[in-house]
Amino acid sequence: MSRNDLEEVAGRIRGLEIQGATNVAITALKAVRNHVVKSGAKTRSDFLNELELAKGILFGTRPTEPLMRNAIRYLIHNVHESDLEDPDSLGDLTSSLSEKFLGDLEESKREIAEIGSKRILDGSTVLTHCHSSSVTRTLGKAKSQGKDFHVFCTETRPRFQGRITARELTELGVETTMIVDSAVRFLMNDIDLVLVGADAITSEGNVINKIGTSLVALSAKEARTPFYVASELLKFDSETVYGEYTVIEERDGREIWDEPPEVLRLRNPAFDITRREFIHGIICEAGILSPEAVVREVNSRYPWVGFEGVG
Amino acid sequence: MSRNDLEEVAGRIRGLEIQGATNVAITALKAVRNHVVKSGAKTRSDFLNELELAKGILFGTRPTEPLMRNAIRYLIHNVHESDLEDPDSLGDLTSSLSEKFLGDLEESKREIAEIGSKRILDGSTVLTHCHSSSVTRTLGKAKSQGKDFHVFCTETRPRFQGRITARELTELGVETTMIVDSAVRFLMNDIDLVLVGADAITSEGNVINKIGTSLVALSAKEARTPFYVASELLKFDSETVYGEYTVIEERDGREIWDEPPEVLRLRNPAFDITRREFIHGIICEAGILSPEAVVREVNSRYPWVGFEGVG
Amino acid sequence: MSRNDLEEVAGRIRGLEIQGATNVAITALKAVRNHVVKSGAKTRSDFLNELELAKGILFGTRPTEPLMRNAIRYLIHNVHESDLEDPDSLGDLTSSLSEKFLGDLEESKREIAEIGSKRILDGSTVLTHCHSSSVTRTLGKAKSQGKDFHVFCTETRPRFQGRITARELTELGVETTMIVDSAVRFLMNDIDLVLVGADAITSEGNVINKIGTSLVALSAKEARTPFYVASELLKFDSETVYGEYTVIEERDGREIWDEPPEVLRLRNPAFDITRREFIHGIICEAGILSPEAVVREVNSRYPWVGFEGVG
Amino acid sequence: MSRNDLEEVAGRIRGLEIQGATNVAITALKAVRNHVVKSGAKTRSDFLNELELAKGILFGTRPTEPLMRNAIRYLIHNVHESDLEDPDSLGDLTSSLSEKFLGDLEESKREIAEIGSKRILDGSTVLTHCHSSSVTRTLGKAKSQGKDFHVFCTETRPRFQGRITARELTELGVETTMIVDSAVRFLMNDIDLVLVGADAITSEGNVINKIGTSLVALSAKEARTPFYVASELLKFDSETVYGEYTVIEERDGREIWDEPPEVLRLRNPAFDITRREFIHGIICEAGILSPEAVVREVNSRYPWVGFEGVG
Amino acid sequence: MSRNDLEEVAGRIRGLEIQGATNVAITALKAVRNHVVKSGAKTRSDFLNELELAKGILFGTRPTEPLMRNAIRYLIHNVHESDLEDPDSLGDLTSSLSEKFLGDLEESKREIAEIGSKRILDGSTVLTHCHSSSVTRTLGKAKSQGKDFHVFCTETRPRFQGRITARELTELGVETTMIVDSAVRFLMNDIDLVLVGADAITSEGNVINKIGTSLVALSAKEARTPFYVASELLKFDSETVYGEYTVIEERDGREIWDEPPEVLRLRNPAFDITRREFIHGIICEAGILSPEAVVREVNSRYPWVGFEGVG
Amino acid sequence: MSRNDLEEVAGRIRGLEIQGATNVAITALKAVRNHVVKSGAKTRSDFLNELELAKGILFGTRPTEPLMRNAIRYLIHNVHESDLEDPDSLGDLTSSLSEKFLGDLEESKREIAEIGSKRILDGSTVLTHCHSSSVTRTLGKAKSQGKDFHVFCTETRPRFQGRITARELTELGVETTMIVDSAVRFLMNDIDLVLVGADAITSEGNVINKIGTSLVALSAKEARTPFYVASELLKFDSETVYGEYTVIEERDGREIWDEPPEVLRLRNPAFDITRREFIHGIICEAGILSPEAVVREVNSRYPWVGFEGVG
Repeated sequence: MSRNDLEEVAGRIRGLEIQGATNVAITALKAVRNHVVKSGAKTRSDFLNELELAKGILFGTRPTEPLMRNAIRYLIHNVHESDLEDPDSLGDLTSSLSEKFLGDLEESKREIAEIGSKRILDGSTVLTHCHSSSVTRTLGKAKSQGKDFHVFCTETRPRFQGRITARELTELGVETTMIVDSAVRFLMNDIDLVLVGADAITSEGNVINKIGTSLVALSAKEARTPFYVASELLKFDSETVYGEYTVIEERDGREIWDEPPEVLRLRNPAFDITRREFIHGIICEAGILSPEAVVREVNSRYPWVGFEGVG
Repeated sequence: MSRNDLEEVAGRIRGLEIQGATNVAITALKAVRNHVVKSGAKTRSDFLNELELAKGILFGTRPTEPLMRNAIRYLIHNVHESDLEDPDSLGDLTSSLSEKFLGDLEESKREIAEIGSKRILDGSTVLTHCHSSSVTRTLGKAKSQGKDFHVFCTETRPRFQGRITARELTELGVETTMIVDSAVRFLMNDIDLVLVGADAITSEGNVINKIGTSLVALSAKEARTPFYVASELLKFDSETVYGEYTVIEERDGREIWDEPPEVLRLRNPAFDITRREFIHGIICEAGILSPEAVVREVNSRYPWVGFEGVG
Repeated sequence: MSRNDLEEVAGRIRGLEIQGATNVAITALKAVRNHVVKSGAKTRSDFLNELELAKGILFGTRPTEPLMRNAIRYLIHNVHESDLEDPDSLGDLTSSLSEKFLGDLEESKREIAEIGSKRILDGSTVLTHCHSSSVTRTLGKAKSQGKDFHVFCTETRPRFQGRITARELTELGVETTMIVDSAVRFLMNDIDLVLVGADAITSEGNVINKIGTSLVALSAKEARTPFYVASELLKFDSETVYGEYTVIEERDGREIWDEPPEVLRLRNPAFDITRREFIHGIICEAGILSPEAVVREVNSRYPWVGFEGVG
Repeated sequence: MSRNDLEEVAGRIRGLEIQGATNVAITALKAVRNHVVKSGAKTRSDFLNELELAKGILFGTRPTEPLMRNAIRYLIHNVHESDLEDPDSLGDLTSSLSEKFLGDLEESKREIAEIGSKRILDGSTVLTHCHSSSVTRTLGKAKSQGKDFHVFCTETRPRFQGRITARELTELGVETTMIVDSAVRFLMNDIDLVLVGADAITSEGNVINKIGTSLVALSAKEARTPFYVASELLKFDSETVYGEYTVIEERDGREIWDEPPEVLRLRNPAFDITRREFIHGIICEAGILSPEAVVREVNSRYPWVGFEGVG
Repeated sequence: MSRNDLEEVAGRIRGLEIQGATNVAITALKAVRNHVVKSGAKTRSDFLNELELAKGILFGTRPTEPLMRNAIRYLIHNVHESDLEDPDSLGDLTSSLSEKFLGDLEESKREIAEIGSKRILDGSTVLTHCHSSSVTRTLGKAKSQGKDFHVFCTETRPRFQGRITARELTELGVETTMIVDSAVRFLMNDIDLVLVGADAITSEGNVINKIGTSLVALSAKEARTPFYVASELLKFDSETVYGEYTVIEERDGREIWDEPPEVLRLRNPAFDITRREFIHGIICEAGILSPEAVVREVNSRYPWVGFEGVG
Repeated sequence: MSRNDLEEVAGRIRGLEIQGATNVAITALKAVRNHVVKSGAKTRSDFLNELELAKGILFGTRPTEPLMRNAIRYLIHNVHESDLEDPDSLGDLTSSLSEKFLGDLEESKREIAEIGSKRILDGSTVLTHCHSSSVTRTLGKAKSQGKDFHVFCTETRPRFQGRITARELTELGVETTMIVDSAVRFLMNDIDLVLVGADAITSEGNVINKIGTSLVALSAKEARTPFYVASELLKFDSETVYGEYTVIEERDGREIWDEPPEVLRLRNPAFDITRREFIHGIICEAGILSPEAVVREVNSRYPWVGFEGVG
């Protein structure tokens, strides 16, 4: 893959043609591998330079895409750790590392569903917001354990990702009711557990997720309803350790209203931040942890994510 | 108007062909007047019976429509108070009472806009939810005073009444930005004042308004942002005094998703309840009051609304 | 009844031989009437003096017994209002006033049950604390309306008044579960409504009730569970208007532990104060009101309770 | 007093030469009386015009001075109510009304101290902020009842009014400790009651008082410490009924730092707003009321204050 | 000890004949040792199988008994770690490991008392709930340091464990007052510190303790009273890491009322959960830690407890 | 330096002649080095004894001065770690360790400013309290990045350290406004971020800082304004791990009022405690961490600080 090919992929990521953190990571890993293999690097040093170049281009696609970034960090770290000199061998290593990364990620998702499913009690009512594969797998796992429970899902404006959730859950045989986003508080007293996914986790233990998540969390807290996040630890955004404010992407207002009055402005933030004080636990491959414990677990388990604290 | 005509009007109210509390009240007053005039009542007693009959039919249209109910109570009360015996004179009285009621209502709205506009400060940012003529008049009044301010309005799913608000405000020259309902907390720290309307006010001082209002109020409280309600006192629902739980109307789920998966349920509550503890003040024709003071003011100003406490 | 008889009755009230606000009021009214009838008063002036004397003795029995105090105030006020001069006629008036007072009180209780029952929804779960006849009548009324609901009642240490509640409710056919007082928070997320009685209501809108009530209220607020008080307005303690701190009676520690270690102290406060911010509404004969509105309603409805504000 | 004299007095009020709500009211009443007496009005109509002129000038002195405004409203209302035609008689009436107003005010202050003193318990610890004659009289009254209690007073920057409080209390024999304003939370867990005065009370039941009061209230609420306001009802600012935002006066920054660095800005707001949710009760001449009840009490007791709601 | 003997011991644990986490652990360790010694295992492999068998039987006795489980995990882990082959030597090792475990536990308790006693200030008032040897040792240690303080203890229904606390404290010379459980909020403003024990600590940092503990914690938080838990780290329930919901044991309702009306239900949950947000610190053998830090400390100090996160 | 010299330095530290945690640490390090060099120690053992002696004297100067204590712990730990025997060599080592410590501290401060500056957004408004070199360096760094922002600083009674902050910031070209301490809540809704320093961090994750800090934090939380602490990790007070209650130093009341009335008491606490629940993040040399994570980071990064947990 030439630099042009890489930039073409980057463009597709930037343009939201590829969606979902895992899909983006898969695409990026593939693009990196193709790039370094086809780069014609003659030496280890060249190879490493090409890796860095690919990293630079892909990191530039989106303000927040920690899983993709961590995937690339994993590749680069392990390539550095190897003592291979031959570009062909390094290319093979890159391929096998990509596969390893995705295999481990899949295993994490499996464990999250396994652990999280224990919190879905028979006869209970669960609320979710937006679409998260970790959440639907967890609910599907609980269903497969023979539990009977009811799920409320929001429609999730402006892009109606709640419809994906609704389709997946009903196909899994889970009894599901959809509501508009703003009906969350109306129903909260009947909810036993809120379960959502994450786009990113910060060094302070906060969770960045689809716009509206923090409002659900606020309403859950008001009603003493437990609020859990199901997320792989590799959603951890290591740049937050050093103070980078996670920039909240604002998207095209036409997603809200395609033919608005001319002078009307539209603001369309894609995410919001749910502070750790609203989160009962983060369900991850290491178990159910307090949000404050995540940074340590990431550092211990995935040191190549690359930050110093919490040692 | 025969009983059939009356029931036809009632049907249109029930079927939501007529919307907006004031429109419903106007229609009902007109229907009552037409009914009693055309009823062929020969005596005062007959006339009064026809009034009661009309009341019964119209009260049966909607679980919560306090302004319409209070309009009809006003008619009946004042007809009873008169000592006219002649059905024609009573018919004329009914007409003039209807006009008087609507004239007073318009005057109340004018006063609310006048009073409320004082709270819209130059350079401030206001958030509103759904559509309320009291709110847009208040904002329009403030604009006409030469103040410069910015309004955020929610789109208000499922029926997008926020688009009506957006059109009205932009036509008034008010700088306006629309957001999705669930972006409310994302922006709340930048909001100086929340201003919404009301569908009903209860004896406890709570406000019933479009679904999502209580979530906005919760988010406002969390950020110490003042939350005001602009409403005529005749939105007071006197039946709540005696314990009737204001039934929250749930509408057709197809408003949310017109072609949902077959087994998916949809719940579409139209309103929610914002408790008095979230409301800084109710801006009404009597001034800006605490929600706790409203019941007394209604009893004093409109005794014909017809409840005993707060005496 | 001689003064000795009166003091004997006062002694029984003081010694808690007579319990329940209504029973105490009945006993006191009877004692007053007997006293003035048998006092041998020869003139209106003598008669009035004897009334004051009886008042003084009975007011001295308990720090907080507003219903009894208001009963006696009612007698004295109306005797003063009459222009009767003859002690026999005044005696008859006293008797009929006593009956009138008790009849009105019964009517208030009936109305409270009627109004309150509308808040007991079919399929709901209600929590109550201690024993209150207003609460059991309300629940009984709801049951008689064919509603199906479940009641949790606390045992209410140290005197287990919850057992009276449990017996009454089960006899009324209400499905009832008893818990220890400290299990309240464990179950609160499953409760739809808390309903308790009152020993006194203060000028600030606070409610004094059996020890533990404020803890139930705190737990209810934490879980966004509505908390209502069912109480006749005549539980209003008018002395709180002028600043008297309602003294919380502390009873014999042996009620807690009959054979404690010698050096162990025991404190046994009988009541606690639930501030108005925890109370959604007070269900009284005037309807369901915010606690802040009670003082006005008392002043308007029962001016002889005898305080100036809220006019 | 010529118009010039009146404006000279107005200037002294505006320039803060006269301080304390009562002093300002006394001065204004005297100035009005002198003005109308010396105005040379020949007719009732002239006299009334001069009164209005005086009102206009004095109302223009300060954004918030409700006691003074209410004093002038009292004069004008009662002059209007009289049917005197003769300017001399009207002048005499003005004099006697002024005296009556001040006599009633003094009586209110006496009652507040009487009522409030019941809340100062033997052995307790009280915190106050700034200087308020109602507070020191209340504490003095409690001391004269033989109670032993301790008072913490803040120094109250920037003008150290806490020193006046400290002097008055120590002279009354009250054991007093001064702290800096920001030590309030450090000590709050040891405080049994907070008691402050008021500069104004609004239609929503909020209290405007010396800068920092709302911070004391916030800290009190966090620690479940009761927070009371001692204030005459005539501090009610009737203009807030119709929406006027009580403008918070900002004073010269040199009060904070007399020789600041040149480019440094200084902001010196004199008051802040304590919302009703922080206030347990307002101790006034009508007793101890919830803040929500104040507007009704003012309307009933002092209808000449001149607003419609709460009727 | 034959399998029958082991099951007899298990039966006694299950039947609550043995109470207190430490007693249960001691009994279980002894039973395991006896079982493996008498099992007639001929090989290391047999021996290990017998250990697993004993573990299975004892783990099945109670839903939550983390200290016992951790004791058995300790044995098994260290036996596995040894390279002994001879069953006799393995038996000796088991004995010495049991003693080592209990010795270390005692040392932890001593350290907790030492550390915790520093928080008991001279002249302060402490509240405790139920009975905890860690709490009484801490208070005893503080007393032995010459400090003068007062302890309030709840009676702790339904089994009155507060009486054990009261006896122990009074015997230690600590000035103690007993109250009913529901008087906790009545007194909370006079409390300087709440100190309770723990039955289990979860991966989220929550504490499971006697029913009512979470209500005490809620009341403490409302009054800004510090709330501490004194507990050995080995109360950590490692199964919560992987999502097991700690099942709250519900006991026989006859503990509440021995002769209830026939149709009355009784629910008797033994424990409740106090979430980490209510806990100022956990006083353990490692010092005073935030609840969020406990999982890491357990993993570092007692890796044989056997979970992966927090690494 | 003789013991006398050392005690002279200790006296100056005790007497607050030397202020600022870094200055105190520098002075103490210098004093230790001079003492051991001039002590005439002939052996390693003597040398170590002298070190301990110096530690004892310097630790006795102030109840809370963790940076100084950690500096001395660093010296002693590293001297112990070395295998040098010769007192002269040990003296040289002491010197170089002192320099190393101060160099590392300076590097930490630089990193804090770098990391913290990322949180100062262009166009934002920041509030700070008292004076902290970490805070002013962070703000200066942000300014040097070309960002435009406004800072409010409190005057910080009783010693007006806010004036130092104001001078430093205005000299750095930062637009700055000073307010009195009690105006913090008045302005809080306009603040985007609160940033303060720390005098000490405890094992529970709480921060001890200048009196009033916790009140600022409370006000920030009420308004949902993020609250950050900028502090080197070596402000961690390891003695809090083992339960020492950080004693809050109370200073001379004359700092508040130099000529108070004779009987007036003055209390002048120098610090207060801001609990972790108010702190969004601690900005330290390891990045931005939750307060709960600090204890682990200190233990990992600076094990010589000397406590066992969190391992």
